[in-house]
Amino acid sequence: MAIVTLTTDFGTQDPFAGIMKGVILGLAPRAQIVDLTHQLPAFQIMAGALAIAGAWRWFPKKTVHVVVVDPGVGSARRPVLVEAGGHYFVGPDNGVLSLAAQQADKPRFRHLTNRKYFLGAISQTFHGRDVFAPIAARLAAGRLRASALGPLITDAATLSLSKPERISTRTWSGEVIHIDRFGNLITNFHIAEFPELERGRISLLAGIHPVDYMVRNYAEALPGEPVAILGSSGYLEIVINQDSAAARLGCAAGTPIELSFI
Amino acid sequence: MAIVTLTTDFGTQDPFAGIMKGVILGLAPRAQIVDLTHQLPAFQIMAGALAIAGAWRWFPKKTVHVVVVDPGVGSARRPVLVEAGGHYFVGPDNGVLSLAAQQADKPRFRHLTNRKYFLGAISQTFHGRDVFAPIAARLAAGRLRASALGPLITDAATLSLSKPERISTRTWSGEVIHIDRFGNLITNFHIAEFPELERGRISLLAGIHPVDYMVRNYAEALPGEPVAILGSSGYLEIVINQDSAAARLGCAAGTPIELSFI
Amino acid sequence: MAIVTLTTDFGTQDPFAGIMKGVILGLAPRAQIVDLTHQLPAFQIMAGALAIAGAWRWFPKKTVHVVVVDPGVGSARRPVLVEAGGHYFVGPDNGVLSLAAQQADKPRFRHLTNRKYFLGAISQTFHGRDVFAPIAARLAAGRLRASALGPLITDAATLSLSKPERISTRTWSGEVIHIDRFGNLITNFHIAEFPELERGRISLLAGIHPVDYMVRNYAEALPGEPVAILGSSGYLEIVINQDSAAARLGCAAGTPIELSFI
Repeated sequence: MAIVTLTTDFGTQDPFAGIMKGVILGLAPRAQIVDLTHQLPAFQIMAGALAIAGAWRWFPKKTVHVVVVDPGVGSARRPVLVEAGGHYFVGPDNGVLSLAAQQADKPRFRHLTNRKYFLGAISQTFHGRDVFAPIAARLAAGRLRASALGPLITDAATLSLSKPERISTRTWSGEVIHIDRFGNLITNFHIAEFPELERGRISLLAGIHPVDYMVRNYAEALPGEPVAILGSSGYLEIVINQDSAAARLGCAAGTPIELSFI
Repeated sequence: MAIVTLTTDFGTQDPFAGIMKGVILGLAPRAQIVDLTHQLPAFQIMAGALAIAGAWRWFPKKTVHVVVVDPGVGSARRPVLVEAGGHYFVGPDNGVLSLAAQQADKPRFRHLTNRKYFLGAISQTFHGRDVFAPIAARLAAGRLRASALGPLITDAATLSLSKPERISTRTWSGEVIHIDRFGNLITNFHIAEFPELERGRISLLAGIHPVDYMVRNYAEALPGEPVAILGSSGYLEIVINQDSAAARLGCAAGTPIELSFI
Repeated sequence: MAIVTLTTDFGTQDPFAGIMKGVILGLAPRAQIVDLTHQLPAFQIMAGALAIAGAWRWFPKKTVHVVVVDPGVGSARRPVLVEAGGHYFVGPDNGVLSLAAQQADKPRFRHLTNRKYFLGAISQTFHGRDVFAPIAARLAAGRLRASALGPLITDAATLSLSKPERISTRTWSGEVIHIDRFGNLITNFHIAEFPELERGRISLLAGIHPVDYMVRNYAEALPGEPVAILGSSGYLEIVINQDSAAARLGCAAGTPIELSFI
């Protein structure tokens, strides 16, 4: 009973995601289908890449992750399968799978060329339904080997997150990479690359706004005060307890962050 | 392990759809429940009818589709079951099931009169929970025959989509029937009735805006340029690559479309 | 195959709820997971308490309900399990489970102290993933007894809904407790405490707006006219047929309701 996750920019007003589920359940009736989100901003490949990169490792091995942010659907862009970390990832070759793949050891990319495993007639506009859902379902059902789907490739499209740059001995320049639903600012400072964050001795500028200290949990912050915190996915976040830091500070994805260790 | 799909205007802030799932799982613990959408505009029967008509055929046979857009709940409007195309459809007799039914050969409508299969106490305001969910669950569990639920009827309410009208030798007058989440305009020109669309030689007016040509996929369109495309459900659509045609052209459901074959 | 319901303020743009499902399915692969809502207003404990209180009884016994509205996450607030009415409830000890618990006979609260059943490393900001999801999964899988999770407590946080107060022989002062997606005003007059509502002979003021009579179903109301109706969860509601009473009358949660039996 394998798991298939869905991550798309299809929204939830139209039955697009539901149609994909119909196709999947027709081929893998016992699949557990999980929506990661269908509310990605339309056409924003980076948003999709970040969403799946932050979520996949919380699922069991052999989970099949379908990610469809696909402005090039119907064009020459390739459909791909990535095998990484014991998981499968299916989607367009536009980089949307690349951040998740980079987190794993030796990801393998395949060009999905074997049309036998697609739906019979392929539309030019909805490969989520016609290509990615049937491939995912067949992988989830355990009825085919990845090698049957197409050849390995080494030139898959990749995105890269901007990395913080050192601008003086104790100071780094980074940026906001995502605003979550609470208005928290997720930055590109990750605990794995900046283990000194564990000590909690920092000050920073979020755009033009000073943030003077780091807390262990939201409740340590005074009301209305922006503070830094180590978020649940390992990134440094700037938050306001029970309020939206993004709204209060006028920050968005791309806002510069200047971080000093003190 | 049958599938039950849900299509409602209940929104996702309140637990209405979740409550229906609780009732379904109480009676059919192994059902696969799929949300098509709960974000239909409130009380818009046509929107519900279009959603299920575009989605049902992508599910396996014996799927039970529950559709609840039900402004007349509690009044004399009948609850109905439709057997069509090997699928079941359950909902109020207000036309919301009629577009899906029309797509199948010889749909059969039943008035759901056998209260034995409803929940014990029926509210006047939430038949999704008290009538439609338990009927759907029992059908999905395979524990009863449709004929036990009530008599066949031949006077069920029907909606009809406006059909394009010929206004000169090569020109037809139609309209926009739906805006999807990307802002694409879905028109009432369907490939089944206008096979000449396959050739792609058309020009059209969307409201007052000329659309000069048709593409095979989004990527063929120049940025910012409105183009026509054959959508994934067979309808002619007017789209702007990575932008909202509805917003750019000021079009909505009901906007007239004048289509000329050239 | 037990059921796990999820009720949070996580929204649906970020994969937070999906990540919880990954954790649950890793521990309970056959669980039926049902979203009640993830669209609770951020940090609004009362909204979460009302949502689960209105939904839980429609699920079968042994269902595990996870409710995460958790502004105090990472602070000293305790994680708790409630056994009530044959169901399990898991969430923070901030009152969000208390309205549901009050509906059952002899609810038992436990402080979840046995870290063996949490995920290995506990973040300070996402106990939905690290504490509540694994506990819920293990309960759903039937692999542990509640008593293994921690000691019973008797000082759990409780919320209380405001109760209507009698202000003259036949008149009571209450309030609006919730606005649903249709704009219906849900009041704090419940049929269990006001059985006389069954007779339907009332008049009321919603804020400054007179509502002259009560209907059995929406269709009995004239267009545009606010009326009272007994809602599907047993509360008196003020509605406008196919329109938003909240928008038309300018009412919100907290608006006073003055109800007279006539």
